[in-house]
Amino acid sequence: MSRTVFFLSDQTGVTAETLGRSMLAQFVDLDYHPVTLPFVSTPDAARDAVDRIQATGRADGVRPIVFSTLAQGDLRDIVRGADALCLDFFAAFLTPVSQELSMEVSRTPAKAHGIADKGAYSHRIEATHYALANDDGGATRDYERADLILVGVSRCGKTPTCLYLALQYGIFAANYPLADEEFESGRLPAALVKHRHKLHGLTIAPDRLQQIRQERKPDSRYASASQVTFELRAAEAIFQRNGIPYLDATECSVEELASRILQRTGLERRANV
Amino acid sequence: MSRTVFFLSDQTGVTAETLGRSMLAQFVDLDYHPVTLPFVSTPDAARDAVDRIQATGRADGVRPIVFSTLAQGDLRDIVRGADALCLDFFAAFLTPVSQELSMEVSRTPAKAHGIADKGAYSHRIEATHYALANDDGGATRDYERADLILVGVSRCGKTPTCLYLALQYGIFAANYPLADEEFESGRLPAALVKHRHKLHGLTIAPDRLQQIRQERKPDSRYASASQVTFELRAAEAIFQRNGIPYLDATECSVEELASRILQRTGLERRANV
Repeated sequence: MSRTVFFLSDQTGVTAETLGRSMLAQFVDLDYHPVTLPFVSTPDAARDAVDRIQATGRADGVRPIVFSTLAQGDLRDIVRGADALCLDFFAAFLTPVSQELSMEVSRTPAKAHGIADKGAYSHRIEATHYALANDDGGATRDYERADLILVGVSRCGKTPTCLYLALQYGIFAANYPLADEEFESGRLPAALVKHRHKLHGLTIAPDRLQQIRQERKPDSRYASASQVTFELRAAEAIFQRNGIPYLDATECSVEELASRILQRTGLERRANV
Repeated sequence: MSRTVFFLSDQTGVTAETLGRSMLAQFVDLDYHPVTLPFVSTPDAARDAVDRIQATGRADGVRPIVFSTLAQGDLRDIVRGADALCLDFFAAFLTPVSQELSMEVSRTPAKAHGIADKGAYSHRIEATHYALANDDGGATRDYERADLILVGVSRCGKTPTCLYLALQYGIFAANYPLADEEFESGRLPAALVKHRHKLHGLTIAPDRLQQIRQERKPDSRYASASQVTFELRAAEAIFQRNGIPYLDATECSVEELASRILQRTGLERRANV
């Protein structure tokens, strides 16, 4: 018996997915089938959603769980009619927040994952293009604009972390791969020394890095135990000699790395609309 | 009088930020100062957070609002002691979900934005590297692996949308820029025709595209009204002639574009951990 969980929203569904999944992660043995129903923004769409929830419950033999973020009360009332455990985030929290602020809910609220704040949204998009242009040591001359420069050996997680920081938080994050030149000299290139206060290091366990590189270039020197161990030791020595803070990415997701880096550096989460 | 809003979590804070911001977007006239406090996972850290909330309330002259996602009851109890409006997502919903599932909360729950599900996490990272390698028509020979190929004129939003789809949902998304060759012939290149069922178009309003290109290459032909209008008309004609579904990106964020594309194509949101 597998349980179906619906993430239902009048907009993208990102908030409903995020909170629903974070709740269900509390039950490690739970096996569930996730279904996202975004853009349920009219009574007709809400009734269609209810039909689908009902049909799924009958097919599963167990009633579904519905995590919803429906700002309009009339849509919430329709969805609540489904034979399901319905948990709506706005139903739970909108009234206390409204009372606390002594403000009424706006008739045309801003979209939570929209581009209502055009400046902040453009900033995220610019940051994303910046991260791409400054990936993998691509353009060290543009480090003036960087909020952050991630350094570390090839495939330790720099690129996805920079992209996540850009897309989610509007951070201008460049990254620079430490390689033979740095390992032999034990020194950072001038372009990095100049921006030392923006540097943050990443490291990773040798066996994990070997596994990642093995998938990319099987049985290469690049993926060998000796090379991986040498590079990681040399990189950590460079971090320590230059006073560069660094994190171990082995057991960390990009969300965790991004959050820890922001916390340590005090960089502002500028544009998480 | 500006209100401070805390997003407090025992993990990354991504869930608390997402739900808090989506709630506060309901009050368009609200001006608030957001502060994220991640990794509050011990009683000491929770007491430090309370001290900070108290001090902020005194400085602001108004009590803060706290959106929290604290899985442990003892930490929630500590935070509730702060003089603030405290709204905890787990406090509100964990009991009904636990009862519905007839399951106890796990002693060591999975991390909501961690890498507990190693397969799904690796998939997101692979998808991100794929999106980079297949950005901007970079590697049309690798389209076999694509779940989706976004097509459209330069700077209509293809790249950030592909990266978001990869990072958030583990979708292998390539993108291909339509340019002079396609506009003159009115045809798609063979590499795209072969994968026509994977194609999705993006378009954008001419004045918005002009603005974006103007910032990138001021006063160029590339940013001129006539060029932009010509390209967009030619691209839409190609979409229509080839039966390629397309979306207008003008008023859409990457979250909205991603969500609409997933909804239309039926692609599975594979890896949103």
